[in-house]
Amino acid sequence: MNGDRATSAELDRDDPLAGYRDRFVGAETPLVYFDGNSLGRPLKATGPRLQRFVEEEWGGRLIRGWDEGWMELPQVVGDAIGRTALGAAPGQTLVGDSTTVLLYKLLRAAVALRPGRTQIVVDRDNFPTDRYIAEAVARETGLSVRWLEPDPDGGVTAEELEAVVGLQTAVVLLSHVAYRSAWIADVAELTRVAHGAGALVLWDLCHSVGALPVELDAWDVDLAVGCTYKYLNGGPGSPAFCYVAERLVGDLSQPIPGWMGAADPFLMGPEYVPDPGIRRMLSGTPSIVAMLALQDMLALVAEAGIEAVRAKSVGLTEHAIALVDRDLPGVEVASPRDPERRGGHVTLRHPRMREVTAALWREDVLPDFREPDGLRLGMSPLSTSYAEVARGIAAIGRALS
Amino acid sequence: MNGDRATSAELDRDDPLAGYRDRFVGAETPLVYFDGNSLGRPLKATGPRLQRFVEEEWGGRLIRGWDEGWMELPQVVGDAIGRTALGAAPGQTLVGDSTTVLLYKLLRAAVALRPGRTQIVVDRDNFPTDRYIAEAVARETGLSVRWLEPDPDGGVTAEELEAVVGLQTAVVLLSHVAYRSAWIADVAELTRVAHGAGALVLWDLCHSVGALPVELDAWDVDLAVGCTYKYLNGGPGSPAFCYVAERLVGDLSQPIPGWMGAADPFLMGPEYVPDPGIRRMLSGTPSIVAMLALQDMLALVAEAGIEAVRAKSVGLTEHAIALVDRDLPGVEVASPRDPERRGGHVTLRHPRMREVTAALWREDVLPDFREPDGLRLGMSPLSTSYAEVARGIAAIGRALS
Repeated sequence: MNGDRATSAELDRDDPLAGYRDRFVGAETPLVYFDGNSLGRPLKATGPRLQRFVEEEWGGRLIRGWDEGWMELPQVVGDAIGRTALGAAPGQTLVGDSTTVLLYKLLRAAVALRPGRTQIVVDRDNFPTDRYIAEAVARETGLSVRWLEPDPDGGVTAEELEAVVGLQTAVVLLSHVAYRSAWIADVAELTRVAHGAGALVLWDLCHSVGALPVELDAWDVDLAVGCTYKYLNGGPGSPAFCYVAERLVGDLSQPIPGWMGAADPFLMGPEYVPDPGIRRMLSGTPSIVAMLALQDMLALVAEAGIEAVRAKSVGLTEHAIALVDRDLPGVEVASPRDPERRGGHVTLRHPRMREVTAALWREDVLPDFREPDGLRLGMSPLSTSYAEVARGIAAIGRALS
Repeated sequence: MNGDRATSAELDRDDPLAGYRDRFVGAETPLVYFDGNSLGRPLKATGPRLQRFVEEEWGGRLIRGWDEGWMELPQVVGDAIGRTALGAAPGQTLVGDSTTVLLYKLLRAAVALRPGRTQIVVDRDNFPTDRYIAEAVARETGLSVRWLEPDPDGGVTAEELEAVVGLQTAVVLLSHVAYRSAWIADVAELTRVAHGAGALVLWDLCHSVGALPVELDAWDVDLAVGCTYKYLNGGPGSPAFCYVAERLVGDLSQPIPGWMGAADPFLMGPEYVPDPGIRRMLSGTPSIVAMLALQDMLALVAEAGIEAVRAKSVGLTEHAIALVDRDLPGVEVASPRDPERRGGHVTLRHPRMREVTAALWREDVLPDFREPDGLRLGMSPLSTSYAEVARGIAAIGRALS
């Protein structure tokens, strides 16, 4: 293991982003955190910031806070996500609700924009919520779900999509990065295929946003949703975001009209008149305190630059795979070996991964287990070191032997 | 004004709950806060608690937090609301989403439980979101809205409801306390009327919960929603709650199925199988940090007792009305004068209230303005003193003269 430790130390020494790790709570502990793709660590700045918010903003400004920035926060933080991590011009991204609720609202709205079409296309390996929402919306709007059946260790390809889309396709709902295999879908190409059939695309960015560059405007994406508690370190259950391309927003009608999405919330008039822009996607009052951690992390990602974050992410997953290949015989890498097609995590497969996970947790090495035999190693680029990855792989080896 | 100041001082001296005021941030400042019914003040305990949460729970326990309490928090906090403020046995109350989204989910579910019925009954003075959601759900399910037209300075009576419900009524959606007039609806009686026609009731508790006793189980209520950032001091945009009577929960099918509401969220299976209990109302992952302030306030309300909170609330609104009658000629009290029918706020009416509101805000007296001529004085019982009320009424007098 000596040669390996030297390598990890070298990689850390040469890592231009190594200094960012100190900004996170708990980075100095020996714990190995392979779950930053599920719940990112908090920044050290976040705790004091929340306390200040309670005492100065909420406690000091009280109801006036709504006039002094809270009302616009869903758009302000949305635009910051758009600028920092989505390649989205302002006015198209909004924070609020959960990913599930936003998926529902966008999918309903999208189906309504393609009247007469009868199918929603989804892949069988998509995250459960995406599949459940697609089925629920199909059921209530009289459409059906057309399933794609991609390679479970890879993901959806343009050829597969091409084979199923047509004049019957209303919407194609896909994930940018597959939550199990980490396969990176070719968003631009798949969007072109869907558009070629006259369908809309709705991209789920939960497992990519903040870990790799996304270019929604350049890729001609119609609609997207994503999560902020994974690589954007918003905290457990922090609100999700949605993206609506500017060309569509004026025609979009979402199913849950509330006062916060009205053109003039304080008019409180007899009829619901939606905001002309992206605010029409709001329903009720979003939690302000739940958006604050996210703001600090977005500033950090912007400072580091998403391209540099991605370069480190590739470095971390390459390092993990090299160590698995060398030190863990019998363990299969169930993620793409081509780094161009692999997101920020690596899934390993072995028949004993369920018990291995339990053993790892007992020694403060925290990966995810995914049925039936997957161990998922998420390496959040700004808070994970190469040495931490090596310690984690070594622990897997001990647990297996 | 001397006599008046003495009276306020006496009332404060005799107030058994006076000591609670010191537990709130900013209670020692001269500011007059008449908006605790819109955004309650934070407790002094809340800031440090959020900081500890970030550093110890989120930062220290990381993903393990979900196994160590976060997963159950929507039910644990829901049950605490039920026990402290709703008269609801455990297992029927859940925290999550916004009031708007929960209203939508419950109303959709309720309509589905009354197939063949064609109307949703709502009152014209209900909060805009309630009206918008009723119209949206009616539109998408092929029903129509039947409007009640109550006295705008009062609210819906049993006679009015009796005149419109029948075999065509699927659901009756009403507010316990009217957001403008503060009228307290007779929930038990109105529920009986609706049930007599075979309809379900959905009660909006936003403007009552935490300020007056609610007895959902005893009143035989079917469904309810409410807000936690008003009298429950959860912070701007803190998540809402829903109540589903135990007899209904197993039959309830909500329209936004997500992984968090599934019977086994980590099975991630091909089909959505809802949780057998109240968790089926969950969709996505709720914000944990947004539920914490609420927990502290619920403990405080439980300690004071909701009956004592209500007694103080009646004392505060009686005091305000007495001072208005004595000192503000030309100002009309647009809330019920019978304290038995009046909630925790008082609405005053005068043609110049818009400019009065602006003048008051400039001197740190913070009421709400409500179109077209209403000044709304919300007096959150545990954080408001009688002297504060008197200072506020005196300021209105100065602004008017």
